[in-house]
Amino acid sequence: MNNFSYHNPTNIVFGKDTISNLPNLIPSDKKIMMIYGGGSIKKNGVYEQVKTALNGRNIIEFSGIEPNPLYETCMEAVKQIKAEKVDFLLPVGGGSVIDGTKFIAAAACYQDGDPWDILTKGGNIIKTALPLGTVLTLPATGTEMNGNSVISRKSSDEKLAFYSPLVYPVFSILDPETIYSLPKNQLRNGIVDAFVHVMEQYATYSVESPLQDRQAEAIVNTLVEVSQRVVTQNNDYQACASFMWSATQALNGLINCGVVQDWATHMIGHELTAFFGLAHAESLAVVMPSLWKHQFDNKQGKLAQLAERVWGINVGSDHAKAEAAIDSTIEFFHSIGMPTSLKDYNVSETDIVKVVDRFEERQTVLGEHSNITYKEVEEILKGCL
Amino acid sequence: MNNFSYHNPTNIVFGKDTISNLPNLIPSDKKIMMIYGGGSIKKNGVYEQVKTALNGRNIIEFSGIEPNPLYETCMEAVKQIKAEKVDFLLPVGGGSVIDGTKFIAAAACYQDGDPWDILTKGGNIIKTALPLGTVLTLPATGTEMNGNSVISRKSSDEKLAFYSPLVYPVFSILDPETIYSLPKNQLRNGIVDAFVHVMEQYATYSVESPLQDRQAEAIVNTLVEVSQRVVTQNNDYQACASFMWSATQALNGLINCGVVQDWATHMIGHELTAFFGLAHAESLAVVMPSLWKHQFDNKQGKLAQLAERVWGINVGSDHAKAEAAIDSTIEFFHSIGMPTSLKDYNVSETDIVKVVDRFEERQTVLGEHSNITYKEVEEILKGCL
Repeated sequence: MNNFSYHNPTNIVFGKDTISNLPNLIPSDKKIMMIYGGGSIKKNGVYEQVKTALNGRNIIEFSGIEPNPLYETCMEAVKQIKAEKVDFLLPVGGGSVIDGTKFIAAAACYQDGDPWDILTKGGNIIKTALPLGTVLTLPATGTEMNGNSVISRKSSDEKLAFYSPLVYPVFSILDPETIYSLPKNQLRNGIVDAFVHVMEQYATYSVESPLQDRQAEAIVNTLVEVSQRVVTQNNDYQACASFMWSATQALNGLINCGVVQDWATHMIGHELTAFFGLAHAESLAVVMPSLWKHQFDNKQGKLAQLAERVWGINVGSDHAKAEAAIDSTIEFFHSIGMPTSLKDYNVSETDIVKVVDRFEERQTVLGEHSNITYKEVEEILKGCL
Repeated sequence: MNNFSYHNPTNIVFGKDTISNLPNLIPSDKKIMMIYGGGSIKKNGVYEQVKTALNGRNIIEFSGIEPNPLYETCMEAVKQIKAEKVDFLLPVGGGSVIDGTKFIAAAACYQDGDPWDILTKGGNIIKTALPLGTVLTLPATGTEMNGNSVISRKSSDEKLAFYSPLVYPVFSILDPETIYSLPKNQLRNGIVDAFVHVMEQYATYSVESPLQDRQAEAIVNTLVEVSQRVVTQNNDYQACASFMWSATQALNGLINCGVVQDWATHMIGHELTAFFGLAHAESLAVVMPSLWKHQFDNKQGKLAQLAERVWGINVGSDHAKAEAAIDSTIEFFHSIGMPTSLKDYNVSETDIVKVVDRFEERQTVLGEHSNITYKEVEEILKGCL
């Protein structure tokens, strides 16, 4: 196990009818901006629940945060925050709304230049941020309990991430009933997103962290166990609750304590989203199996362990088990309706060149062994076709 | 899964040579009281590491916190804190030192009467407490990452617990090398303590919390996996690290999210410590197997799951598996040198009466079904003989 720090101050309020706790969670003297997306919260009743809970409070609204939240939209919110002297942000939505709000929280306080710097130079340039508390309506990214945010910029087709301890939500309300009305593809995407988050922190090489390995396996085993009940959209409270809590645990800093991480799948996936419009989870489901095959020798040990402890494959050599783990993972994705090939998105070999060129330009080196350059990205992407 | 809140703001700094981070963790304007026990930290070098790290800081010392920390001793520290205007507490030691410091932190700020009220009336009577940061030298109780404290009072042979969100450590430093010099019985006690903490939150009845179940199993599987390497005292860093992190995870609020808890073993065990001087973990190892047998029908489902997922017993009825789980747990305790009978401590059937009388006086009702009165306590204790 490597040395680590773990500090996660987010207050999680989990369960049925928990949105009614909002007045106890936001100080009464705050001017609140409620931030949301395209208006699905007005259809599923969450908007009403929030407004009712905060009746009588000083609150304004900002809507229109896109999936893959745009810098340009976020900066509109920043303008309004400054004009209206907002001092508490309340994102109500999924990962995009919350990620967008984290950037807004930082950008609203950033005095030293173009806030896009926060994405290009990293979150450590932030000295302060507005406080935010979230109401999560789509389990997937774990953003409700971490300091991560991913923002896209339309003008340059870029999608970049930042981290800052200053943008951890003060609180996050997770009511599993809010996800009942989600379309199947969003539920599927959420499950895959959480699954891949765990794998980025697990399928690397061992540094003797048996507890963290098992905590990671606990999450993916649970995701697999409840996945069919979730995607059949039968308003199954217990399945939705376990899915929701699993997605949060997948990326709240716990399972990466003292272990080696990868994140190459995410870095490559972000470009597929930026160039070809795949949803985040769709891009991950395409890239990860191919990346695992490409990096097979480096990941064999952990993949064999995944085969044993998650997919129940206890016979054969480590090599055979690791191969079976990749096949079982692909089958699992397919079983919940998630494609795993770029062909499913009509992306061709010639399209890939754009992505490879960008990695070449940036001279990015990826993977837990820092052995994935633009050349290996090209091979991995060809394996996705 | 039941509704829950989870909020744990303690900053964990884990790994080799992490005591040197102290100057970054305690604001430089603080007057620090370093609090420790009988002086073992002077023998194993931890005292020197702390003093070196805080060289030049305004720091005084208070030593002599006992195993099962005494109210009377803690109140001596409170007197000194008030006289010397201390505003940061730094416990360096195991669960007793840290628990004692939590009480000191609360008692030093308590203005409304006798601080013993905090134990009898509960932690919610506390309005403020001094900040504390810990250096842990004995993994066991999880106190380094929670708001719990257990204090004994000599004058009345009492041992009582309190909880307050105000006494979570601001930070806790966990350096596995600090446990190299521990005697075998303390290592054994720590493993059993952590194991039983997990079971108090697991071996109850199911409310459909598959993730929390697996997170609990992750901890006990890891404790079992590394236990022999820990108790053989071979300065095995990786085994000590996994033991240390497992003990913290066993009682930091995570695995009890939304589940049903028991804690009857602890409540009965506390009295065995108060009356007969058993170490905390020794009392738990004696009580739990007997309590499981007494409450067999209520716990059968989870015990069968424990048999399968921890003890590798996959054949037979649930009844048979659950029985095997109890036997395997007793064998595990014995394998690390932990007795499981009151006879091992020369406590007889007549001695038990004192404990039963106390539960009768207090009219305490224990267990996840609130079905354990003093009468059942008597039966359980007879089963420990």
